[in-house]
Amino acid sequence: MSDAAADLAAIVRRIEASFAKQAIMDTIGAELLRVEPGRVEIALAVTPRVAQQHGFVHAGAVATIADSAAGYAALTRMPEGRGVLTAEFKIDLMAPATGARLVAVGSVVKAGRLLTVAQAQVFAERVGGDADTRKLCAQLSATLVAVENRQGVVD
Amino acid sequence: MSDAAADLAAIVRRIEASFAKQAIMDTIGAELLRVEPGRVEIALAVTPRVAQQHGFVHAGAVATIADSAAGYAALTRMPEGRGVLTAEFKIDLMAPATGARLVAVGSVVKAGRLLTVAQAQVFAERVGGDADTRKLCAQLSATLVAVENRQGVVD
Amino acid sequence: MSDAAADLAAIVRRIEASFAKQAIMDTIGAELLRVEPGRVEIALAVTPRVAQQHGFVHAGAVATIADSAAGYAALTRMPEGRGVLTAEFKIDLMAPATGARLVAVGSVVKAGRLLTVAQAQVFAERVGGDADTRKLCAQLSATLVAVENRQGVVD
Amino acid sequence: MSDAAADLAAIVRRIEASFAKQAIMDTIGAELLRVEPGRVEIALAVTPRVAQQHGFVHAGAVATIADSAAGYAALTRMPEGRGVLTAEFKIDLMAPATGARLVAVGSVVKAGRLLTVAQAQVFAERVGGDADTRKLCAQLSATLVAVENRQGVVD
Repeated sequence: MSDAAADLAAIVRRIEASFAKQAIMDTIGAELLRVEPGRVEIALAVTPRVAQQHGFVHAGAVATIADSAAGYAALTRMPEGRGVLTAEFKIDLMAPATGARLVAVGSVVKAGRLLTVAQAQVFAERVGGDADTRKLCAQLSATLVAVENRQGVVD
Repeated sequence: MSDAAADLAAIVRRIEASFAKQAIMDTIGAELLRVEPGRVEIALAVTPRVAQQHGFVHAGAVATIADSAAGYAALTRMPEGRGVLTAEFKIDLMAPATGARLVAVGSVVKAGRLLTVAQAQVFAERVGGDADTRKLCAQLSATLVAVENRQGVVD
Repeated sequence: MSDAAADLAAIVRRIEASFAKQAIMDTIGAELLRVEPGRVEIALAVTPRVAQQHGFVHAGAVATIADSAAGYAALTRMPEGRGVLTAEFKIDLMAPATGARLVAVGSVVKAGRLLTVAQAQVFAERVGGDADTRKLCAQLSATLVAVENRQGVVD
Repeated sequence: MSDAAADLAAIVRRIEASFAKQAIMDTIGAELLRVEPGRVEIALAVTPRVAQQHGFVHAGAVATIADSAAGYAALTRMPEGRGVLTAEFKIDLMAPATGARLVAVGSVVKAGRLLTVAQAQVFAERVGGDADTRKLCAQLSATLVAVENRQGVVD
């Protein structure tokens, strides 16, 4: 295995291990879909357990996968032993979150030593949907702060 | 019962009925704590099912109760038959969300015919905590859009 | 002139006429650089008159050109007689705004009948800079509300 | 002069000295109105030079005084030699900014070692207006990062 492949494998393992500890993902029915350096995708099945009063997915559930997708995209850029915490985020909810599943695609806008700006787009997919039929339903922008040597905060 | 008391009772019933339809609240373990005109409180028990990887409550779960508290505060000001949808929100996460439970206190900043700006403060309470020991851990500001005569969107 | 060319010319005239009425642009030294359907660029010369205390361009001046670039990008999509007002915006300031000039590039994320989400990236250019040397220093996301038949609010 | 009075005088001098270096304030016609520990007020005369196309004060000018009021409120809490930079802010524009002058009132929500969350309310005052007639037209929330020993960034 080349160095690049080994690095990628290490990044994937790191994100997978951290995601597995985010119990809320299991609670709401989200799963880690794809990990690349600087880019992470998380999917959420549209089920009644994440519904708000009109039957759409609650903005908070949309924000949950978008925040994690953005945060994990940032984490792929962090050296081992340095974690990230969300300091703040802003989310625009542009269309009702409906369909078969939502996919949040997180990426890094600007990685800094201390602060990282990351973003996520959330797409609503229909049953049997492909990239052509998916619809942008939300976008998030987050400020993440790097945390080192702080008990309990690593990946 | 006075008119004011009847109005208050109608508002409380309306918010309770809508909250009961937000299935995500049951999924994450949140409950409606208090309803007043222009002010709504929602509590979330701090349990593993809403945890992120460091054991804190996930920012998305904090946002879920904060968004609903702000949105329902706005809804108490809306005439019957007119609902609200969150167009966007911004949340500042100022301290790790830990303790025994979180309480989101939503209120209205500016109610307009079309757009309402509402906010929420989220406090972390310790076991046996009272108002003196609770700690501000997050604040949210949301833009809500009034929706009328749109199928499925009422309260 | 083809219909498409005539439409484009009408859009350019409309934005130019509105921009000329934004007296603040003259005050801070900003100019309209480019107008296309769904995309508007505004440049700001980096001069002492827009400085904050460290000699960088003040975040408010960065926000001024970013907000107008995003708003005018949205306006290019609006029928004649319908204007837009900024309901809220969020801006990330990722690097000190320095150099010879700033260029804000506004675009439309989602155009709705009532609400439009638009964004802007702000780049810092050095003297003699070209696209290769410019640096992303800020990004803005805005919610704009369409306004019709309201006195004084057109373009 | 008591220690407390001397401390206050030092804080006021520090903010006044920094404000005097924000050349943009002079450019747009803003002035420092009041400084207290954790609270700073900045006024902006409503004149054509800060106007947008409908004759209201441009959102960017509103943001300029709100950002500085919030940032200076944070700076009053910082030890000498440590400055603050705005990492991001969000502003809600709830009513057209008109009248005789705007007053931005900045305060600190949560002061941290590294990050501070500060806010500002912006009020529109009529000619001869007093506190009773002024109207909330905007609110801002900002994340500020403390900067130390970085050339050119002190107060």
